[in-house]
Amino acid sequence: MSTTTPWKLAGRAEKMNPSVIREILKVTEKPGIISFAGGLPSPKTFPIEPFRTACDKVLREDGQAALQYAASEGYAPLRQAVADLLPWEVDPAQVLITTGSQQALDLIGKVLIDKDSKILVETPTYLGAIQAFAPMEPNVVGVACDDEGVDIDDLVRKAEGARFLYVLPNFQNPTGRTMSEARRAALSQRAAELNLPLVEDNPYGDLWFDTPPAPSLTSRNPEGCLYMGSFSKVLAPGLRLGYIVAPKAIMPKLLQAKQAADLHTPGFNQRIVAEVMKGHFLDRHVPTIRSLYKTQRDAMLAALKREMPEGTAWNSPDGGMFIWARLPEGLEAISLLPKAVEKNVAFVPGAAFYADNADQRTLRLSFVTASVEQINTGIKALAEAIREHQPAKEIAPLEI
Amino acid sequence: MSTTTPWKLAGRAEKMNPSVIREILKVTEKPGIISFAGGLPSPKTFPIEPFRTACDKVLREDGQAALQYAASEGYAPLRQAVADLLPWEVDPAQVLITTGSQQALDLIGKVLIDKDSKILVETPTYLGAIQAFAPMEPNVVGVACDDEGVDIDDLVRKAEGARFLYVLPNFQNPTGRTMSEARRAALSQRAAELNLPLVEDNPYGDLWFDTPPAPSLTSRNPEGCLYMGSFSKVLAPGLRLGYIVAPKAIMPKLLQAKQAADLHTPGFNQRIVAEVMKGHFLDRHVPTIRSLYKTQRDAMLAALKREMPEGTAWNSPDGGMFIWARLPEGLEAISLLPKAVEKNVAFVPGAAFYADNADQRTLRLSFVTASVEQINTGIKALAEAIREHQPAKEIAPLEI
Repeated sequence: MSTTTPWKLAGRAEKMNPSVIREILKVTEKPGIISFAGGLPSPKTFPIEPFRTACDKVLREDGQAALQYAASEGYAPLRQAVADLLPWEVDPAQVLITTGSQQALDLIGKVLIDKDSKILVETPTYLGAIQAFAPMEPNVVGVACDDEGVDIDDLVRKAEGARFLYVLPNFQNPTGRTMSEARRAALSQRAAELNLPLVEDNPYGDLWFDTPPAPSLTSRNPEGCLYMGSFSKVLAPGLRLGYIVAPKAIMPKLLQAKQAADLHTPGFNQRIVAEVMKGHFLDRHVPTIRSLYKTQRDAMLAALKREMPEGTAWNSPDGGMFIWARLPEGLEAISLLPKAVEKNVAFVPGAAFYADNADQRTLRLSFVTASVEQINTGIKALAEAIREHQPAKEIAPLEI
Repeated sequence: MSTTTPWKLAGRAEKMNPSVIREILKVTEKPGIISFAGGLPSPKTFPIEPFRTACDKVLREDGQAALQYAASEGYAPLRQAVADLLPWEVDPAQVLITTGSQQALDLIGKVLIDKDSKILVETPTYLGAIQAFAPMEPNVVGVACDDEGVDIDDLVRKAEGARFLYVLPNFQNPTGRTMSEARRAALSQRAAELNLPLVEDNPYGDLWFDTPPAPSLTSRNPEGCLYMGSFSKVLAPGLRLGYIVAPKAIMPKLLQAKQAADLHTPGFNQRIVAEVMKGHFLDRHVPTIRSLYKTQRDAMLAALKREMPEGTAWNSPDGGMFIWARLPEGLEAISLLPKAVEKNVAFVPGAAFYADNADQRTLRLSFVTASVEQINTGIKALAEAIREHQPAKEIAPLEI
């Protein structure tokens, strides 16, 4: 028998490396650590009792169908519920149920990306999207952004030949920022003029604190956009339920990619969520999440203001789960992380979220899973770590 | 605004066509039809009550964790349960939980297939595997098979440069055939000599009727094989739970592909199945499926013997869900199908399952979802359709 390994990996697999962020975050897996690093929703918000009732009902009344193979498109009442939920006109035939919105990214990549295709992303952007598109080997190009969202001039410079722009307009992961109405209007118009499709990802849009964000990009030009939504942040991520709303021209291709990928999303889970959503459950449930997360955001903003040394900056998100911060000059988030972990607090270095030209001073802070008390303790510890590792001020010659 | 469509599809998506089989099977969607066409397990076998108890327990005792994001590898107790289930030594660290075994095919394709890579499949083979590999654009080559399995001489002729051979040794879909012990031994040895990895798919292996099939190919050479299993046929497909057992050299790449594809398989579903499996549930449950399916197979074999015109041939599978039949000379299964549907009976034309050089006379008959009475009625109707559409016998000159 031969002793050489028989396995020859695909080119894309040779290039796969363990996620830098995963490796970095291993240092944060320390018992008792206060973690602002996670991208997880607060488990306090999971409606466990309604799920229990729904499981019981679905298995009693519809058990055989719920446990059988099912249509790749998704469970019809759930597709209808998604169409009803969205504030622009959506035909349920345009709704494809996916195994979390992460799978939506995988399917979109398969249908729209050839090897070396240029695709545009925000700077910074959701790391998982870059990972989902990676097997199709695109050329990922970051478009500059400011506090209002995508920089239209930079977009125009880079749009030629791009397959699409991937964009999270609401309480973006990682920055927490929201695209302004003016910027949405401008982006929608320029994208149409440029013949540039938009892939709009909206997992956090319902988690606004004071006022809902401006209307989606997709509602402004449904034929030019793919829209992605998720039940992970408004119900629970452990069921893995997301969806794509697609123009009818693209839907058959996405459906075939879906069928090949996992035949269909678990029918049992789809029925549970359709059951829980009956009677406008989300209208009562989502405000409780908003209220909790707003309290947590306020606590973190107050702690940052109280504790952070001069030169540290951060934004004030209007919803979602994340605050984006920037360290004083001379500090890098990746080298700060182990020092912070020594003080029992963790975050994600922002560099992980850039397609190119990472800003090494940035970091992402989740305010939703730690308690207010932990937020106070954790931000104090983080501020101490920053102070201790700030480069010494230049010593004035007079003091010699 | 531009009026041209902004969407440019990936090359692989341009090539995607609606599954021929799906289109053909649309004619079978007729109310009240007796269908031998499905690949679905019998819903009578789904253990609904144990699932109900497990859902309740998981949500009461572990609800927040069950509904939260989870590790891409899978739920540790389920990985351990899979390792314990398999009759050769498997480290749980080698087990990757997938969203049905269809997803296992997608991940294996991403990790092992480059554009135009040669991959080998049985003749015929599982259609869904060809569809799952298609996005990676392989060159799929069929290896000849006989009643005992893969033809080793044809394999040797075609193995040069192939990334792997995809093989279903037990009660194969579509043919129902099982690879003999002698053929397994020969295949395992020659594959190792040829440095040819084997991708062994075993969704039906537990559904044997009289004696278990010979040991798996993977157990003979674990470092040279990827093994795929599923809970779809022994518990229920609607939870979408499968797994890959991978050599430690390949596992990290599969894991990264898994993370990018859907982050993780629903943790809720993994806990339900781990809970249901406790106390050796499968040891009591699976024999009830075997017994039901054996009765159904016997009924179909008896009906075929009773009803079919001369020249029709079929096999007698030792387990699983399918009988493979061949029409008399001059008949093609695809053109027979609408005639059969007129008589209220459906099947899948075998041509759908060939990578190349399809045998147009073949067809797949599932014996597990129709009742014995329906089997009797349906096979009688199918035999009539065959008789009515058989080409007229040559008229002997003497009779003129």
